[in-house]
Amino acid sequence: MSTGMLREAMAGIAEEIDRAFDLLLPVPGDPRARLVEAMRYATIGGGKRLRPLLLSATAAMYGVDRDAAVRAGCAIEAIHVYSLIHDDLPCMDNDALRHGKPTLHLAFDEATAVLAGDALHDFAFEILADTATSADPFVRIELVRALGLASGWQGMAGGQMMDLVAETSEFDLPTVTRLQQLKTGALLGASIEMGAILGRVPVEGRTHLRGYARDIGLAFQIVDDLIDHEGDAAVAGKAVGKDAQAGKETFVSLLGAEPARQRAHMLVDQAVTHLASHGQEADLLRAVARYIVERDH
Amino acid sequence: MSTGMLREAMAGIAEEIDRAFDLLLPVPGDPRARLVEAMRYATIGGGKRLRPLLLSATAAMYGVDRDAAVRAGCAIEAIHVYSLIHDDLPCMDNDALRHGKPTLHLAFDEATAVLAGDALHDFAFEILADTATSADPFVRIELVRALGLASGWQGMAGGQMMDLVAETSEFDLPTVTRLQQLKTGALLGASIEMGAILGRVPVEGRTHLRGYARDIGLAFQIVDDLIDHEGDAAVAGKAVGKDAQAGKETFVSLLGAEPARQRAHMLVDQAVTHLASHGQEADLLRAVARYIVERDH
Repeated sequence: MSTGMLREAMAGIAEEIDRAFDLLLPVPGDPRARLVEAMRYATIGGGKRLRPLLLSATAAMYGVDRDAAVRAGCAIEAIHVYSLIHDDLPCMDNDALRHGKPTLHLAFDEATAVLAGDALHDFAFEILADTATSADPFVRIELVRALGLASGWQGMAGGQMMDLVAETSEFDLPTVTRLQQLKTGALLGASIEMGAILGRVPVEGRTHLRGYARDIGLAFQIVDDLIDHEGDAAVAGKAVGKDAQAGKETFVSLLGAEPARQRAHMLVDQAVTHLASHGQEADLLRAVARYIVERDH
Repeated sequence: MSTGMLREAMAGIAEEIDRAFDLLLPVPGDPRARLVEAMRYATIGGGKRLRPLLLSATAAMYGVDRDAAVRAGCAIEAIHVYSLIHDDLPCMDNDALRHGKPTLHLAFDEATAVLAGDALHDFAFEILADTATSADPFVRIELVRALGLASGWQGMAGGQMMDLVAETSEFDLPTVTRLQQLKTGALLGASIEMGAILGRVPVEGRTHLRGYARDIGLAFQIVDDLIDHEGDAAVAGKAVGKDAQAGKETFVSLLGAEPARQRAHMLVDQAVTHLASHGQEADLLRAVARYIVERDH
């Protein structure tokens, strides 16, 4: 797949996700309007939409209806966005910039940011529970289960807790790896898993997809660490140099920048190898894996 | 039903919910331990467990397995508790006392409180998605949908947003009623609804239950306003006098204390009338309605 085709796929899903959020989040004519406006501010027109891209690319391999994949993509993106909103709060990372615009608690206020994150959290599960996502209740409940496990204490929230503890502890490489597998890997993995669930791939047929997801998840985080280490805030659309400032061990601090970059490339090669049993229907997943190590934001 | 039987039912569900949370939230042997300890601090051994009581009392009317009702009760209680944790944060109500002990952000720290609330939010949906709650995926997905709608922007979170707006706006009685129907009524209503879903009561057979839920929900909030107006912090287990201090209109400020109390009693009478088609299997719901206007905390 050419870089042009990947760019087209990324632009396509971004537009579909924006349109779906716009339709799914109408502003009510009462004082709840401020809450929904905050949810719209955070969800519409920002981010790479990497998780919906992974979900829809996986779903497309198994012939899933595009609208269903976009809806499930909105659900996982809503979870991702809620976690960013809460992560940006003054009591967490205290960030001022997200996707190149003021963070939600600065654009609105802290209380609204807490509530908008909470409401997006529900919104994700609501979308999955709706018959428009799948007529089959078994598919819908499996989506809920996969997303809940990936975002809860066993997954993303657990990784965020480890990240807080990392500020005052010295983590070694296995612990940093585990932290990152939870903090970002769990949700990236759920994107692939949810695509497979929509595609009715049985659990025993998902092993190679999980291998792909694990490898790109770790590669993604190593590149994030490199961007934080070397990047430009204007290009990244968020603050950089934060890890060193917080005294956190990262792949870059533990391995060094060049070995970390090599490891990311090796992981992406390995991710692509997991897809060897597939033909060109997996080209988009292969291209996403390559993009993950080549991106600068 | 005698007061003794209600007291026994309340003590029974409280013990079952505590035991279930204890089993469902094992502390992991890694740095996520702090997160799960915070979740346990907030969920085990506190609160009246009114929502699980309503859910299990409704489920019992339709012969639902007790373990399934307790699990679904844990899910709705987890949502209630997460909302209290976030509501108590300094950027929200800034409360120091909850169920007679220090609020989570004081017992732990603010970042952990945000994360523990978020993780309990996921935990609720995870419990509902698990086969132990119901073998039928349709029942599970209906539970997810009912809980998601009740807690999201259309329900509880929307009501909390209205509550924030209320600090700087003059709300009239219909708007305060709407606010309260969302802020506390939605989740109380979901308790009844989820009991009916577990009991496989078709939607058209739930009208009287929804009437009961609407009436006790409003009565509950009026009594909460009265406790805030006249109560004793030591008995209430939380700060009192907060509404007047925040300049918020309440049922008490709009109606006066005595007319508000009369309205609560009238609503409870009406709630009990909705149950007229039931025999003694609805006695517990009738007793809960009476308790709601008689409680002092």
